[in-house]
Amino acid sequence: MSLLEKTTRKIFPQNSEMRAAAEDRLNNLALPHWALGDLMDLAMDIAGITGTMVPDVKRKAIITMAGDHGVVAENVSKFPSEVTPQMVRNFVNGGAGINALARQAGAEVHVVDMGVAADLSDLTAANKIINKKVGFGTANIAAGPAMSKAMARRSVESGIDIANDLASRIDLFGTGDMGIGNTTPSTAIAAVCSEKSVEELTGRGTGLDDQQLAHKVTVIKKALNVNPIDKNDGLDILSKVGGFEIGGLAGLILGAAANRKPVVVDGFISTAAAIIAYKIEPFVRDYLIFSHRSVEQGHKVMQEFLGCKKPLLDLNFRLGEGTGAAVAMNLVEGAVAILTEVATFEEAAVAGADK
Amino acid sequence: MSLLEKTTRKIFPQNSEMRAAAEDRLNNLALPHWALGDLMDLAMDIAGITGTMVPDVKRKAIITMAGDHGVVAENVSKFPSEVTPQMVRNFVNGGAGINALARQAGAEVHVVDMGVAADLSDLTAANKIINKKVGFGTANIAAGPAMSKAMARRSVESGIDIANDLASRIDLFGTGDMGIGNTTPSTAIAAVCSEKSVEELTGRGTGLDDQQLAHKVTVIKKALNVNPIDKNDGLDILSKVGGFEIGGLAGLILGAAANRKPVVVDGFISTAAAIIAYKIEPFVRDYLIFSHRSVEQGHKVMQEFLGCKKPLLDLNFRLGEGTGAAVAMNLVEGAVAILTEVATFEEAAVAGADK
Repeated sequence: MSLLEKTTRKIFPQNSEMRAAAEDRLNNLALPHWALGDLMDLAMDIAGITGTMVPDVKRKAIITMAGDHGVVAENVSKFPSEVTPQMVRNFVNGGAGINALARQAGAEVHVVDMGVAADLSDLTAANKIINKKVGFGTANIAAGPAMSKAMARRSVESGIDIANDLASRIDLFGTGDMGIGNTTPSTAIAAVCSEKSVEELTGRGTGLDDQQLAHKVTVIKKALNVNPIDKNDGLDILSKVGGFEIGGLAGLILGAAANRKPVVVDGFISTAAAIIAYKIEPFVRDYLIFSHRSVEQGHKVMQEFLGCKKPLLDLNFRLGEGTGAAVAMNLVEGAVAILTEVATFEEAAVAGADK
Repeated sequence: MSLLEKTTRKIFPQNSEMRAAAEDRLNNLALPHWALGDLMDLAMDIAGITGTMVPDVKRKAIITMAGDHGVVAENVSKFPSEVTPQMVRNFVNGGAGINALARQAGAEVHVVDMGVAADLSDLTAANKIINKKVGFGTANIAAGPAMSKAMARRSVESGIDIANDLASRIDLFGTGDMGIGNTTPSTAIAAVCSEKSVEELTGRGTGLDDQQLAHKVTVIKKALNVNPIDKNDGLDILSKVGGFEIGGLAGLILGAAANRKPVVVDGFISTAAAIIAYKIEPFVRDYLIFSHRSVEQGHKVMQEFLGCKKPLLDLNFRLGEGTGAAVAMNLVEGAVAILTEVATFEEAAVAGADK
């Protein structure tokens, strides 16, 4: 059996008994009923995911996966592809948004080369990044598939490997991405799984103007036309219009779920990866914590597709890297603190409400 | 000159040069323009408040102020007044929602007896709470003023005292409240400063049913009828339809601003206190960080009155105690980390966008 099949077989729904036990305790905390709202819902999820009433979420890691995209040749981004390896070096040096926000949250940052179109072997040799390079950037999806089916599988299995390697010492995973041009494949993935038009799903990425946005729409439509896709097959979607970092993140999510670890999903690209993971194994949805609502307009559609009506945060972020996930990790810790540290009416000797 | 006057004279608008310097740096960070959205706006505010490009916000404290309310005699709450001192003891024992969430955020919790209708002298003697008791609960606002003008001033000045005492060792303040019945005076304060009807402003507090809610509306209308209020006079509003903890929090907010410290405003009751502070000294608005949008329906109206269109969080909280402020402190730290730890394009040697 392949690693992918072995992994999906280990993904089960949340532990419903532990969810119910958590709900019961939360109902009896010395506060007006469910007065800490969304964090109490989240606390139930964490109990259900981890299968314990005293979940540990202290050991946190953001896995930021980088890859390049052949579709950048179509002028879909304001930034050149060289920025992808430059930003990888910035991550390694600790100077990026994700470094600052992960430090605030007390989370490690692991940077993964899934398919950067540059030689990063010096960083691999120095043990500063994890090398899972599947290729030097994908092919241009406006002209054909992004990658072969074998490469798609290898991307996903690389992400699973990372989750498995870290699972013994990390309690809470967060996803992050870096890849110039990657809102284009992510929007194509959104289009595959929604009834919305490409126009409605396509956003400005790093800052396109109206004309550039219209051009991006055309390119995405072209990609969907030249690539016949089986929309029920996650690996097929990934190989046709995905990206190496998207596949890696899908694998990370599957691997986290197989290890019964909650995984905080960052923004637009990470949610596209979550859709790939969901298409591979629908039960993975029970392990997803949606961190924030991106400015990128297709994000809401993808989150709703995955059953998320309202993510934890809405801070007008549109950076990726794992920045939204890092901020949201504080809220996951808060949710667990509510479950494990707040006294019940009885424990606190506080009078309840009149019935 | 009284402490109140001395304090208001020290409250100035934000440092506009430092705001501009922060904006300039944030514009040049190695990320798409303003891609960390609301936290970048917040970073500008913190620079403007503190007057430095390297603000310190590590030393954090939630000040949870407790008081009782004579209007509870009108049956406006699901819980009896005895719960106020019981919850104060719960805070001291570390078992309340605010304890859990403040621990997560790395914030101290200081509990203040502003006017609890019970003897808490054992806790004062043991140095577990700050004793600023102005009275054993307010008078019933449905029958007359909550307190004398002198008591209103004393409440506010007590809050200023606490801010001044802590200012040398605390960088970031958060407000919190405990007081059975205190959504009733807070809603009355909301009504004084808005054009909305009492019906539109009144919420279910700790969980009123429809009939109890209608009764609460009647009580608030009665309070506004029996108490002629000068709506431009913060101390008059406070004395007529306020509360001791509301006055204390207004003073804490004024004191924080006078010390150029940002103050994270919690929910419905804390925002009513912020309105009192604003009516006393409008420049205080520049120091307010709005943590979250409460479920309590008048909260949005009060936040908008204070110029806040969108608070940082919207988590369906309706607890008070400072819980929303504690969670939001993580975001304040994140904002400062963005300003102080993220490299610019030049520093990181990353290529910028095509112009």
